[in-house]
Amino acid sequence: MAADTLARRLRDIVGAGHVLSEPDLREPYEGDWSGRFRGAARAVVRPADTAQVTAVVAACAEHGAPIVPQGGNTGLVGAGVPRGGEVLLSLRRLDAVGDVDAATAQVDAGAGATLAALQSAAAAAGLDAGIDFGARDSATVGGLTAADAGGRRALRHGTMRARVAGLEAVLADGRAIDRRTGVLKDNAGYDLPALLVGSEGTLGVITAVRVQLVPRLPERVVALVGLGDVEEAADLLARLRRDAPSLECADFFLDDGLQLVLDHLRLPAPLEPRAPVYVIVELAGRGDVTEELADALGEAHAVVGIDGTDRDRLWRLRESHTEAIAAAGVAHKLDVGVPLDRLAGFLDAVRETVEEAGARAVLFGHLGDGNVHVNVLGAEGDDVDEAVLRLVAERGGTISAEHGVGVAKARWLSLTRSEAEIAAMRAIKRALDPQNILNPGAVLA
Amino acid sequence: MAADTLARRLRDIVGAGHVLSEPDLREPYEGDWSGRFRGAARAVVRPADTAQVTAVVAACAEHGAPIVPQGGNTGLVGAGVPRGGEVLLSLRRLDAVGDVDAATAQVDAGAGATLAALQSAAAAAGLDAGIDFGARDSATVGGLTAADAGGRRALRHGTMRARVAGLEAVLADGRAIDRRTGVLKDNAGYDLPALLVGSEGTLGVITAVRVQLVPRLPERVVALVGLGDVEEAADLLARLRRDAPSLECADFFLDDGLQLVLDHLRLPAPLEPRAPVYVIVELAGRGDVTEELADALGEAHAVVGIDGTDRDRLWRLRESHTEAIAAAGVAHKLDVGVPLDRLAGFLDAVRETVEEAGARAVLFGHLGDGNVHVNVLGAEGDDVDEAVLRLVAERGGTISAEHGVGVAKARWLSLTRSEAEIAAMRAIKRALDPQNILNPGAVLA
Repeated sequence: MAADTLARRLRDIVGAGHVLSEPDLREPYEGDWSGRFRGAARAVVRPADTAQVTAVVAACAEHGAPIVPQGGNTGLVGAGVPRGGEVLLSLRRLDAVGDVDAATAQVDAGAGATLAALQSAAAAAGLDAGIDFGARDSATVGGLTAADAGGRRALRHGTMRARVAGLEAVLADGRAIDRRTGVLKDNAGYDLPALLVGSEGTLGVITAVRVQLVPRLPERVVALVGLGDVEEAADLLARLRRDAPSLECADFFLDDGLQLVLDHLRLPAPLEPRAPVYVIVELAGRGDVTEELADALGEAHAVVGIDGTDRDRLWRLRESHTEAIAAAGVAHKLDVGVPLDRLAGFLDAVRETVEEAGARAVLFGHLGDGNVHVNVLGAEGDDVDEAVLRLVAERGGTISAEHGVGVAKARWLSLTRSEAEIAAMRAIKRALDPQNILNPGAVLA
Repeated sequence: MAADTLARRLRDIVGAGHVLSEPDLREPYEGDWSGRFRGAARAVVRPADTAQVTAVVAACAEHGAPIVPQGGNTGLVGAGVPRGGEVLLSLRRLDAVGDVDAATAQVDAGAGATLAALQSAAAAAGLDAGIDFGARDSATVGGLTAADAGGRRALRHGTMRARVAGLEAVLADGRAIDRRTGVLKDNAGYDLPALLVGSEGTLGVITAVRVQLVPRLPERVVALVGLGDVEEAADLLARLRRDAPSLECADFFLDDGLQLVLDHLRLPAPLEPRAPVYVIVELAGRGDVTEELADALGEAHAVVGIDGTDRDRLWRLRESHTEAIAAAGVAHKLDVGVPLDRLAGFLDAVRETVEEAGARAVLFGHLGDGNVHVNVLGAEGDDVDEAVLRLVAERGGTISAEHGVGVAKARWLSLTRSEAEIAAMRAIKRALDPQNILNPGAVLA
């Protein structure tokens, strides 16, 4: 049987102990964080290095066996778990983090290294990874790159795309490509790493990344600003962009979300009188960022956190939204992006649409990126999800901001991508993976 | 005749006055800045807007007529001039620059807008374009994007790639794609704009770019530091990366290059005693960057420029290299990148190789990017060029840092790109341009 032949080859490549075929051993790899996506793998394969990855991919290609690559399995759109019958390729053992190259401020990290490990290596060299989010202890560098991860610091430092100074990947035919010399300017031919970033494992298996670090900025200050509406929030952001070059984050939430958090954590309100819209701003720099913030905020209705405890206390109000929502019920989570000048109308329309469906919307996100995390409590089926994505599309937004398309949103890709764009994407996919063995069903349905 | 039919269609699309067929009218479009590349165009076509570009490309596709897109024609590798017989598609009339969106710090610029026009629009909004180089008055946004332009500020702000928040382009079949909603995080499908950046007009004709601006940093300071060797220069850079987060530029030149400049401009030496290697550093920030620089430089052998005149005087020593070299003869110019830890050995090897060939090498560049501009005076033929590119390849560098591959280096692409990479590039090219009508012969020979 061909299946047995493949299993034997995989065991020969990675060692019998790293091909997991028993259901109970496979199980932790088969479902994702969202709890919505799960499928049985043909086998879970855990290679130790790039050479083993190339051999595994080549063997699968020869057998026409589809592969789902997986990093820390912290995704929310089903991109890294089996749909049923695929080889689950876990990259977690490729977790080496090299020495930081101080002159280029770069470091080589294996696909399986966690974000926390990357951050530690950067900090030990007096530098900063430039990216952060809650899943830092599990999410891996390979997954961050394949999904083009964002987080609150993307406003200043860009998404993971901006951190990729080069990468190594295995293509669908089992050949590795390696662009990790770390030369910042490299325009010799098409930028294949740039194409692989955000392609969610459908064009190649990322095995290692040369990460561009950023300077460590020791002085930080946080302000929570209460505003009358989203237009005022956008005006504040415009002022900060112009007058506060140390701006690092600008997230937002609404008063009903804040109340949910305050009730959940049994905390008093941080600002009185309350406001319909809140923006939480962080500046980071080397000099006096508190003065810089004060100059930019002017007479704003705000509370400022200067020392670490006060800063964390303010951020907790934003970051506890997820936990407070989870305590209130199982939410549908839609991660979308909307042009900032249409954000106010979008938030109103979402609220109306969700309430008409008898459900409740909790809305927050990254203001500077137009990135809204739409949480819907009490909805049945996918109708509300689709309605929200249509509201995004009507405003020229994107159905996926930082979480990716995966299998969750593949059928809705055409809402915000034109026929010409999707045709080009399909042509690229066919060109690089003619057998459609790399993460089939993700991104392009 | 098919040729006549195409000419008539092109006149119908853009107006007879914008299809230039007479040799003397075509001539200014047919040769590039290097003086090395020139070819006769079938016609020069000057569309007014994206709709006309789509119609022109569709007409050419129907007739199988190859197209060479051209912006400001400031390239140095023959990517934007005809090889012979192509339709030269000039994008210069698409020169509109929109209003700056203050909240996102973004602006829409037509492909034909000059870098200087973009910089003016940014400055008028209290922001900064984040990119600069000498050809700013001619080089266009479309060309910057197609070539992924760099310049001295790329150390801090990245190359043009980092400035592209989205773009509009016409693909080989005449269909336009448009991703300019300016949402920073947009992971709905493959990042086609990222693939088009740096593809030198071979995968699509860029018609407009949504440009991400950066904060304007009012305080600046420049230092010229004399160092014993390239290793010391790399150590200085490492210290600056860690201790001077306001670091914006770090270029280098050597003492013989400095002498050439001093003789040409009849200037005294800026630093005594002289040093083998010089690094010119610029910091830009909001607070006291002079103190930040002094802290990071410590006891370095340096001269510091604080006011604008002194800063310009120091930068002139670096920027006048090109002019001083031109006064000494016709130079072969090779723009290459080398990993910083191999830069010292590379510079020695280039000097030895060039001198063995009875020629003279002048070497300078962007230290922070490992980007070396190799200028060879007194060489005949292409032998020395190829020898230098082989030295680059041996050290894991790139044959093109910021100028692109064009037709000049297409035959050498395999020196620094693997067979698997080139195969992937060719597959992508075939997938998106099966007739090979977009800039044939550039990038991929």
